[in-house]
Amino acid sequence: MVNETQHTCSASSSSKSDGSSSGSESSKDSSRCSTPVLDADRHERLREKMRRRQDAGDKWFSLEFFPPRTANAAVNLISRFDRMGAGGPLFIDVTWHPAGDPGSDKETSSMIIANTAVNYCGLETILHMTCCNQTKDDITGHLQKAKRLGLKNIMALRGDPVGEEWEEEVDGFNYAVDLVKHIRNEFDDYFDICVAGYPKGHPEAESYEADLRHLKEKVFAGADFIITQLFFRSETFLKFMKDCQAIGITCPIIPGIFPIQGYHSLRQLVKLSKLEVPQEIKDVIEPIKDNDAAIRNYGVELAVSMCRELLDSGMVHGLHFYTLNREVATTEVLKRLGIWKEDPRRPLPWAVSAHPKRRVEDVRPIFWASRPKSYIYRTQEWDDFPNGRWGNSSSPAFGELKDYYLFYLKSKSPREELLKMWGEELTGEESVFEVFTCYITGEPNKNGHKVTCMPWNDDPLATETNLLKEQLEKVNRRGILTINSQPNINGKPSTDPIVGWGPSGGYVFQKAYLEFFTSSEIVMALLKVLKKYELRVNYHIVNVKGQNITNAPDLQPNAVTWGIFPGREIIQPTVVDPVSFLSWKDEAFALWIEQWAKLYEEESPSRMIIQYIHDNYYLVNLVDNDFPLENCLWQVVDDTFELLN
Amino acid sequence: MVNETQHTCSASSSSKSDGSSSGSESSKDSSRCSTPVLDADRHERLREKMRRRQDAGDKWFSLEFFPPRTANAAVNLISRFDRMGAGGPLFIDVTWHPAGDPGSDKETSSMIIANTAVNYCGLETILHMTCCNQTKDDITGHLQKAKRLGLKNIMALRGDPVGEEWEEEVDGFNYAVDLVKHIRNEFDDYFDICVAGYPKGHPEAESYEADLRHLKEKVFAGADFIITQLFFRSETFLKFMKDCQAIGITCPIIPGIFPIQGYHSLRQLVKLSKLEVPQEIKDVIEPIKDNDAAIRNYGVELAVSMCRELLDSGMVHGLHFYTLNREVATTEVLKRLGIWKEDPRRPLPWAVSAHPKRRVEDVRPIFWASRPKSYIYRTQEWDDFPNGRWGNSSSPAFGELKDYYLFYLKSKSPREELLKMWGEELTGEESVFEVFTCYITGEPNKNGHKVTCMPWNDDPLATETNLLKEQLEKVNRRGILTINSQPNINGKPSTDPIVGWGPSGGYVFQKAYLEFFTSSEIVMALLKVLKKYELRVNYHIVNVKGQNITNAPDLQPNAVTWGIFPGREIIQPTVVDPVSFLSWKDEAFALWIEQWAKLYEEESPSRMIIQYIHDNYYLVNLVDNDFPLENCLWQVVDDTFELLN
Repeated sequence: MVNETQHTCSASSSSKSDGSSSGSESSKDSSRCSTPVLDADRHERLREKMRRRQDAGDKWFSLEFFPPRTANAAVNLISRFDRMGAGGPLFIDVTWHPAGDPGSDKETSSMIIANTAVNYCGLETILHMTCCNQTKDDITGHLQKAKRLGLKNIMALRGDPVGEEWEEEVDGFNYAVDLVKHIRNEFDDYFDICVAGYPKGHPEAESYEADLRHLKEKVFAGADFIITQLFFRSETFLKFMKDCQAIGITCPIIPGIFPIQGYHSLRQLVKLSKLEVPQEIKDVIEPIKDNDAAIRNYGVELAVSMCRELLDSGMVHGLHFYTLNREVATTEVLKRLGIWKEDPRRPLPWAVSAHPKRRVEDVRPIFWASRPKSYIYRTQEWDDFPNGRWGNSSSPAFGELKDYYLFYLKSKSPREELLKMWGEELTGEESVFEVFTCYITGEPNKNGHKVTCMPWNDDPLATETNLLKEQLEKVNRRGILTINSQPNINGKPSTDPIVGWGPSGGYVFQKAYLEFFTSSEIVMALLKVLKKYELRVNYHIVNVKGQNITNAPDLQPNAVTWGIFPGREIIQPTVVDPVSFLSWKDEAFALWIEQWAKLYEEESPSRMIIQYIHDNYYLVNLVDNDFPLENCLWQVVDDTFELLN
Repeated sequence: MVNETQHTCSASSSSKSDGSSSGSESSKDSSRCSTPVLDADRHERLREKMRRRQDAGDKWFSLEFFPPRTANAAVNLISRFDRMGAGGPLFIDVTWHPAGDPGSDKETSSMIIANTAVNYCGLETILHMTCCNQTKDDITGHLQKAKRLGLKNIMALRGDPVGEEWEEEVDGFNYAVDLVKHIRNEFDDYFDICVAGYPKGHPEAESYEADLRHLKEKVFAGADFIITQLFFRSETFLKFMKDCQAIGITCPIIPGIFPIQGYHSLRQLVKLSKLEVPQEIKDVIEPIKDNDAAIRNYGVELAVSMCRELLDSGMVHGLHFYTLNREVATTEVLKRLGIWKEDPRRPLPWAVSAHPKRRVEDVRPIFWASRPKSYIYRTQEWDDFPNGRWGNSSSPAFGELKDYYLFYLKSKSPREELLKMWGEELTGEESVFEVFTCYITGEPNKNGHKVTCMPWNDDPLATETNLLKEQLEKVNRRGILTINSQPNINGKPSTDPIVGWGPSGGYVFQKAYLEFFTSSEIVMALLKVLKKYELRVNYHIVNVKGQNITNAPDLQPNAVTWGIFPGREIIQPTVVDPVSFLSWKDEAFALWIEQWAKLYEEESPSRMIIQYIHDNYYLVNLVDNDFPLENCLWQVVDDTFELLN
């Protein structure tokens, strides 16, 4: 991650210009103080990343998805993005379905799925776009919207003509090359452009050679790289690549890999792509066509061996996978090839967003740790990051709370499952305590259901939080309903598998943090106890009406996670910020009602219990500033209970 | 330093405006990310500081100086500012000498002395200004200049009319009140204004009562507080204060204290101020008038007992001392009163400047650690601090190197003394090594003279550097000529007497740093050794021509001093910055010639030895990034010597 090369340069003349030579484009754009560049990835264009990985001899992969048909399927696809994103794809791409209103704001449109991948999942993303049968204005509109949403890469395609009879329109978009030219004309060098290559020649081309010439036209019109149609033999691709090079195509050419996952999907794809399946493959598949598992195993074997041949040729640096929106086969192939990142290094403790304007974002309030997509959503209108650390009165406000069922914030669990986890019928505040406790312990509730998510956290407990499990269980049982916490860390290596983040060779630190809902009775006792701790413990205590009790100096943020790295400034990516806490408070209280109370009938006792908690409990956060000592927050809580007894 | 008060506020509506309520004026002015406010002092106006200290029940003091006659005296006065500044005066003031071209750029002018106090010594400063016999334009010009230089406080005085016969000018500046009105008219609320009060009445006033009315006019015209003429009995002041209050003067009134320091100075002051010395004082002094020490002792006794009476009255919170530019008596009085800060807490590891535009400055390159005045001088044209961390290509450049003999950078030692320390005659590079070694050890050189300063450091070795003394001695002896260093620190309390800084309850950290000149032969060996240390040690190696060898990632600053404090963001006040290192390099090399070589005749062997070092040596800096481990830089140097043998 760090440039280890010793370089000699004439200092006096070139120092200033060198200063902005790499990774510091941001500092040229803005007057704010420069952000330590932790991850070159965040500052490079896709084509630059590709080049850098190739130069470094790294092998990489990318993943293709299509937009889902339903909102529920979209929720699942986004979870898949998160899971498959953890394997470290160089990019993903989202196909363009002209029939599905692909440029609209529908949660299932190509545009919105790509937007979600970039902004909410932090994935470098290529949006496909087809041009045939569309007006120039439509296409420009789509491209402008893509740019506005932070998309930076377009796969320029012709698309399938609608209807049998298709005639070229004069001055229209008849071929992909027209779209490439249009993008370059209208958007200059803003987008990285990808085009499709056909290792067997496009089925409609006059000849293989003619198709190669078309490809060359697309590249010379401004395409940056090529992804190929699927193929069944490595020789097919390698020959194609040599033929491309022979006619002067020098940009990267990425083989499209299709792991066979089932008999029917193969048949359908073959029909669409007009490819012929080699006889030796048909011979294996036909006899096992009703055995999905067997076909998938075979498909994985086949893909692994073909990919190995490609990589071993020395001509291939990246592999593009047609996933068909499925996870298992592709992940299996990647793991067997050894290019799935088993231990993805985190550049920061939270998942970064890939929107260009967020590439300098290096600090966030801790409150949204379990709801990063909500944080991104509520700050999407901000022009600048990190936005004056929130304390600046000229900072833009957080976005309003609405769209609780915004599709990428929607729980993966349906209502019935939530009721099983959180209780079909609540009998009192204690039954709520019980839900929190079961979530912490991982033990089933009294009806035998495990509580795997909470309104404030759609995933099981984080590994790091597991370190605090025993104490958390104890306090939740007694009505300190924890929704966020972190242990103190006094200088662990940045490569630590649980708490590490950032480049290697560094040290990470944390102040202990605890955030919970609790009753006013407990809050009164807690405040008495906190007096004893003076400045050691900073607290913010707020109820739904906004009554706010704090001992924080002014309204400054308190850094609770930071890292020290070789040759860099300090990175402090997580803070407890009093100003944003008040925005978080609204969200945290609202989740009681929106996600939990509304599961029950109006006026039902269960609903009234949740409503009571919402109306009367306080949201409390505590920071132990003395990070080198043993975390005192448990003592604070113990003292509070003792005072109450 | 931290607001410990628990405060309850209605959160949702007032949070944003609260955010800027105290100490964060800067964040309103600029779009850069807000700086953690370490020291409320840096953000408050003088009258606010006064109010805050009074509300907190703190006693404080201030010091009055007059501009010196010669440039040499100015150098000494500035050293006195630094020494007396360490005692923690709330402010100092500099008198206005109409006969001495007080608004000019001369190094002895009132304006430039006040400028130096504010900008280079970091002292809150009041500039006196008199108005009689001056045109409106002259006065406005002086005030504009004062504002431009960062002065924020004016003591508005009439001044003594020139000549015996003085007549009021119509529409002219006849009284201090005219100046107060003019300042408020032309500069609105920019300046804090102080006016003079006369506990015995002004000698020219019709009566004591009439003089009180004049004072009230001055206050009602816009003065913020009053400093009184000297007096000899506490009753005089306390009566005066009550009389002021009785006629409605409510602003702070600060008693002017004159510790009697000698017979002649007392006589002269009495003559000028037309005051009468009480008989009981005359009775003591006359018999000992030729015994300076006895008079001073008496003066100290007298001042201490009068100050105690004033403070004990409960009406007095601050004491203003007429120092007559002397140190001993005033310091003695202050120490005996217990208001001299014996252990001044450092808000940052370096001395802050008091210019308003620098009040958000919270980071500096380590290179100027021993030459902070040079750093301030070379960055005085910058509009914004911390100026994009220097790596930003749009940042303003460092000021040119010139004015090596700029009076506040001039050595306190004359040429003859420097020759004694650094050698009347050098016999080779080794005799230079010897000078460096003697500076480190504090032992006398072979001619019996202690080396108490070096061209890069006008003061003896810092306490902190003493921690490294043994190793430093060893390496200097062998030609690693160290000019700057710091040990690694892994989380010492911020109250540590040697390495601590910032508010209490925090922890401070450092990466080990070593900076030295050395021969190209040693550099070649060093580079081989450094390969072994890879990223653990960052290095910059440069010669006078600007050949630059480094393994630093991009051109990012490396934070080498940082602090973690309760309820705040991380403070990282010292960095090793590759861009500013190249500006420092020019200065560091030039000091060989300007301060050392030029002590000798041209063409003399001594001069040629220094010239040879200047032309051929390299300036090296090393940072050990692994601050929790034992400092490896000594091992690096040892390995280098071993390789050479």
